[in-house]
Amino acid sequence: MKTAIADDDRSEIERLAAGFTDSWNSHDMAQFARLFAHDADFVNVVGMWWKNREEIEKAHAYSHSTFFKNSRLSGQIAGLKFLRPDLATVHILWELVGQIEPDGSVGQPRKGVLLLVCGKQDGAWHIHTAQNTDIVAALTQPAAKA
Amino acid sequence: MKTAIADDDRSEIERLAAGFTDSWNSHDMAQFARLFAHDADFVNVVGMWWKNREEIEKAHAYSHSTFFKNSRLSGQIAGLKFLRPDLATVHILWELVGQIEPDGSVGQPRKGVLLLVCGKQDGAWHIHTAQNTDIVAALTQPAAKA
Repeated sequence: MKTAIADDDRSEIERLAAGFTDSWNSHDMAQFARLFAHDADFVNVVGMWWKNREEIEKAHAYSHSTFFKNSRLSGQIAGLKFLRPDLATVHILWELVGQIEPDGSVGQPRKGVLLLVCGKQDGAWHIHTAQNTDIVAALTQPAAKA
Repeated sequence: MKTAIADDDRSEIERLAAGFTDSWNSHDMAQFARLFAHDADFVNVVGMWWKNREEIEKAHAYSHSTFFKNSRLSGQIAGLKFLRPDLATVHILWELVGQIEPDGSVGQPRKGVLLLVCGKQDGAWHIHTAQNTDIVAALTQPAAKA
């Protein structure tokens, strides 16, 4: 039997997903960090692994003061699955424009899949685990990695 | 108050992680697929997203009959966190050798971070969500992506 999921909980999770892009686009990394649990894990697209809210904020404060400072992120929830009534996975398909490349030029748009594991504790939802992966569209061998 | 975690549950999760590499290295993708819940999600390192056990098995059966057929995966659990007594995240740092490149040569070793969200249902643990990310060590700008 499936446990009924409260509409409020679904809304709170959607709020976390929207908060990710909204705080990214306002480059407010204190707000961004507050989406995460204190001991959250975050693995970015190149395998850097931050292990708490402070590390997540610090890394993003740096990137958003430099190569992400003019970037704009859009995303849509492509999957939302309650593994428990108070714990859910969210898959977000995103597109990023306006990243500054090391040579100073504006990079090509990037696309990817962001996984968020969201949990409710003491009445509040936070992101406990995030992992981000670029979509590599130009592979000559589409199933070349796993 | 932290809920006490049974040693058995921890062992079962370690068994899933070991099963991932063991079945990979024996290229037994039926065994590999049985580690996953029927409706598991799996996002690979280039952003391909498989949405159930059958898709996971089919994709890996193809890759392990071709470019992964001689590959060898090793991994170690670098993080194991119980978000609930019956739900945990596992971060595995892995290295893969022996992948065949599109030109037929043997590729360089690859390293990455694999996230597994593991849950217990009806007494049995399975992988509900997997997301894999290559570690890109050679970045000229170490924090260039997020």
